[in-house]
Amino acid sequence: MTKINENFLKLQAGYLFSEIAGRIRNFKAQNPDVRTISLGIGDVTQPLAPVVIKAMKNALDDMSRLETFHGYDDNHIGYPFLREAISQNDFNTRAVEIDIDEIFISDGAKCDTANIQEIFGTDNIVAVTDPVYPVYVDTNVIAGRTGPANKNAQYDKIVYMPCTAENNFVPDLPGQKVDLIYLCFPNNPTGAVATKEQLKKWVDYAQKNKAVIFFDAAYEVFIADPDIPHSIYEIDGAKDVAIEFRSFSKTAGFTGVRCAFTVVPKQLKAYTKDGRAVEVNPVWNRRYCTKFNGVSYITQAGAAAVYSDDGRKQVKATIDIYMANAELIRQSLTKLGYKVYGGVNAPYIWLKTPNGLSSWDFFDRLLQKANVVGTPGAGFGPSGEGYFRLTAFALPENVKEAMERFAAV
Amino acid sequence: MTKINENFLKLQAGYLFSEIAGRIRNFKAQNPDVRTISLGIGDVTQPLAPVVIKAMKNALDDMSRLETFHGYDDNHIGYPFLREAISQNDFNTRAVEIDIDEIFISDGAKCDTANIQEIFGTDNIVAVTDPVYPVYVDTNVIAGRTGPANKNAQYDKIVYMPCTAENNFVPDLPGQKVDLIYLCFPNNPTGAVATKEQLKKWVDYAQKNKAVIFFDAAYEVFIADPDIPHSIYEIDGAKDVAIEFRSFSKTAGFTGVRCAFTVVPKQLKAYTKDGRAVEVNPVWNRRYCTKFNGVSYITQAGAAAVYSDDGRKQVKATIDIYMANAELIRQSLTKLGYKVYGGVNAPYIWLKTPNGLSSWDFFDRLLQKANVVGTPGAGFGPSGEGYFRLTAFALPENVKEAMERFAAV
Repeated sequence: MTKINENFLKLQAGYLFSEIAGRIRNFKAQNPDVRTISLGIGDVTQPLAPVVIKAMKNALDDMSRLETFHGYDDNHIGYPFLREAISQNDFNTRAVEIDIDEIFISDGAKCDTANIQEIFGTDNIVAVTDPVYPVYVDTNVIAGRTGPANKNAQYDKIVYMPCTAENNFVPDLPGQKVDLIYLCFPNNPTGAVATKEQLKKWVDYAQKNKAVIFFDAAYEVFIADPDIPHSIYEIDGAKDVAIEFRSFSKTAGFTGVRCAFTVVPKQLKAYTKDGRAVEVNPVWNRRYCTKFNGVSYITQAGAAAVYSDDGRKQVKATIDIYMANAELIRQSLTKLGYKVYGGVNAPYIWLKTPNGLSSWDFFDRLLQKANVVGTPGAGFGPSGEGYFRLTAFALPENVKEAMERFAAV
Repeated sequence: MTKINENFLKLQAGYLFSEIAGRIRNFKAQNPDVRTISLGIGDVTQPLAPVVIKAMKNALDDMSRLETFHGYDDNHIGYPFLREAISQNDFNTRAVEIDIDEIFISDGAKCDTANIQEIFGTDNIVAVTDPVYPVYVDTNVIAGRTGPANKNAQYDKIVYMPCTAENNFVPDLPGQKVDLIYLCFPNNPTGAVATKEQLKKWVDYAQKNKAVIFFDAAYEVFIADPDIPHSIYEIDGAKDVAIEFRSFSKTAGFTGVRCAFTVVPKQLKAYTKDGRAVEVNPVWNRRYCTKFNGVSYITQAGAAAVYSDDGRKQVKATIDIYMANAELIRQSLTKLGYKVYGGVNAPYIWLKTPNGLSSWDFFDRLLQKANVVGTPGAGFGPSGEGYFRLTAFALPENVKEAMERFAAV
C-alpha cells in the first residue's frame, strides 16, 4: 500500500496566492464588467530589455545550427559565461569575492529557497520571520521539520520571529537556539531593509551557534540607500555561515523566463550528528547533479546580457519605473492618512489597515469597493494581521488609477 | 548546530555521468591531440526544429512588448495551450483520455522523476530495475527510504529487479510486496520495450497491492513497432495506479531548452497510515505551487510548436536520423560478433562486453584504443556488469567513424 507523505496534509489552506486568485475569480464571475487593478502578486509587467531579447534570439540561432547547438549544460550548475558575469558584477564590484564554483544557476529563487532545506537534516530547528514568504515555511512542513499548525496557522517546532513597526521589521535574535534561519532583505512582504550592523548580529549569532542563514536577496536591485548592503557577504564572516539567493525575476523581469542563482560558499559547513564538519557546497552540487538538469542555454544567454553596459542601463530604466510607482503609492496613501512602510528600498509597500480592519476584510473591501487587489498581511503570518501588502510592479497608469480609486472610497 | 542531511553521505561515488566526464577529462589531458567520439551520455546533437525556433522567437517578440508580455504562468502547471496540445496529440490519438488538469509541465523529466517520490511517505518500499537510471535510486537514498549501500552499490531496503537477456530486460514481478515501482520503457539503458501484456501484469500487481507505478516514457517517440504501447495508460486500469513521465528532451531535441511533463491521473490514490485514501493529483499540484514557479513562456511556446503539422514532420526527420544511427550501430557491431540488444524501438544499444571484460575495463579500453566513449553497464547496477551502453544521438558521420574504429581494434 502506497503511503502518502502525510506532512502535505498538515499544510494550511491553499498556497496564499492561489487563495487570492480564487477570490478574484469569484469576484470577476459575479462582476464580469468590472476592471480590477492588481497590486497584489509580485509579478512584473514591463517587457524584457531589448538586449535580453537580442541575446536570446542569438542563442536561438545557435540552437538552429548543428555547429553551435547546445544540448545539456554539462556543468549542470550553469555556463561559466554567466557565473563569471555574476561573480564580477554582483559581487566583485562590492568587494566580495565569490568563486564561480560557489554560484549555482537555477530556474528560480522560489525553487532554490524551497529546495535548499533538503540538504540539511530534518532535526534542525528552523527560524523564520513573521510575516514571512510562505514558501520557506511550507517546504519545511513538507519535509517533516514541524508539527501540526495551530489556529494561527503557525507550525509546532518552527521558531517565529515577529517583525513589527517596533523593531522596524527586522527581527530580534531568537531567545532559543536555532539552526536554520531564513532572512529576506529587502523584505517580502514588508519592504524593510537591514543595515550592516543588523546583519552583523545575525552573522555573529550563526557563527556562535553553528547555524546557517538562508539569505534571500531577490530584491537587492531595488536598494537605493548606498549604506544598505546588497549581499550578506558584505558582512565579515558571512561566507562561513550564509547561503544567498538571487533572482533575475524582479531584477530583469524574468518571472516568465525563469532564471536565478544561489551562492553556497566553499567554507560553509554543516555537521553530522556526531559533530563531524561537512562542506555544504559539494552536497548542494550533488543535489544539483541528481535532481536537476540545468537551465536553458537560451535563458542563460539572456541573463548574461543583463550584465552588459546596455543591459545595465535598460534594466535600470525598468527598475526606475517600478520605484516611481512605489513612491506614488507611498505618497498617495500617506496623504490619505494611511500608515505606510517600505517602498523606498523595495518594491513592496506595507500599510496598516485602517480602523482596525483585519487583513482579509480589508482585502475584500478593497476588491469590492475600489476593485483593487492587494495581498492580506495575515497571509504572511499572524504578525502580518492588520497589515496589507501592495506591490510596485503594475503599469504606472494602473497604479495612478488605483490610487485615485483609493482616494475615492 | 546545523545538521547535514546524512543520507547524502550514503550516496556512492559521484553521479555516474560526472564520473565518466572526469575520466574523459583525464584522457584528454594526457592525449590532447586525440579526437574522441562520444556515444556515451544520452544528449542530442541535431538542431532544434525550425518551427520551434520560430515559435520561440515569436514568443520573445511577445515578451518584448507591454501588451503581450508574460510574467509568471499563473497556472504554475503550464499554459493551457500546451497542455491541450499534449492531451490531444500524445493521448487522444492513442484512445487515451487525459484531462489537462492531469498534465503538469516541468523543466525536465529528470527533475520530475527525481521529485515525484517526495509526495509519498518515506516508509514506502521502492522497487527499481537493475540496471536502472541512477536518479530513481539516488533520490530515494536522499529522502531516507534506504539503508546504506553494499559493495555492489545497492542500497538496503530497495528491491532490485534484475533485467537480463533471460527476461528480455523486462523485470519479473517482485516476490515481496512493494509500494513504489519505477519502470522505464523504452528502457534507458537497455533499449528494451514492454508489450501490453507485460505492462498489464504490472498494472494488475499495482492494483492488487495498492502500489503506484512511476512510468518513465521519455523515449516513447522512438517506438517503431505498432504493437508496443507508447503510454502506460493504453493499459486498462493504469490510470488508477500509474504516474507517467514524458519529455521534449529526446522527442524534440530540448536537452538544452528544458521542457517535460508528468501525468498524474485524478483517480490515482495513495493512503494515510490509517488507510484513508488521498487523491495524489492535488498533492502533486500543491508541491508545484509551493516549490516551483512554472516553465518559461518562451519554452512552452516552443514545445507547443512540436505538435503543429510542420513540427511533427520536422521532429520525425530528426528521430529518423537517430534511428538510422541506431541501425548502423546494431548492424556494425553484430557483424563484428558482438551480442547486441535494443536500438530498434529505442535510441540505446546495449551490448555484451566481449571476452568477459568488466564494463569499466571495456570503457577504459574503448576510450584508449578506439577513442570512443560509451557508458559502462555496471554504472546502472550490478546486473549491468558485463554490458555497455551506446547511444544513437551522435552525428551520423561520427557514428560511422566510431563503427570503423570499433572494427579496427
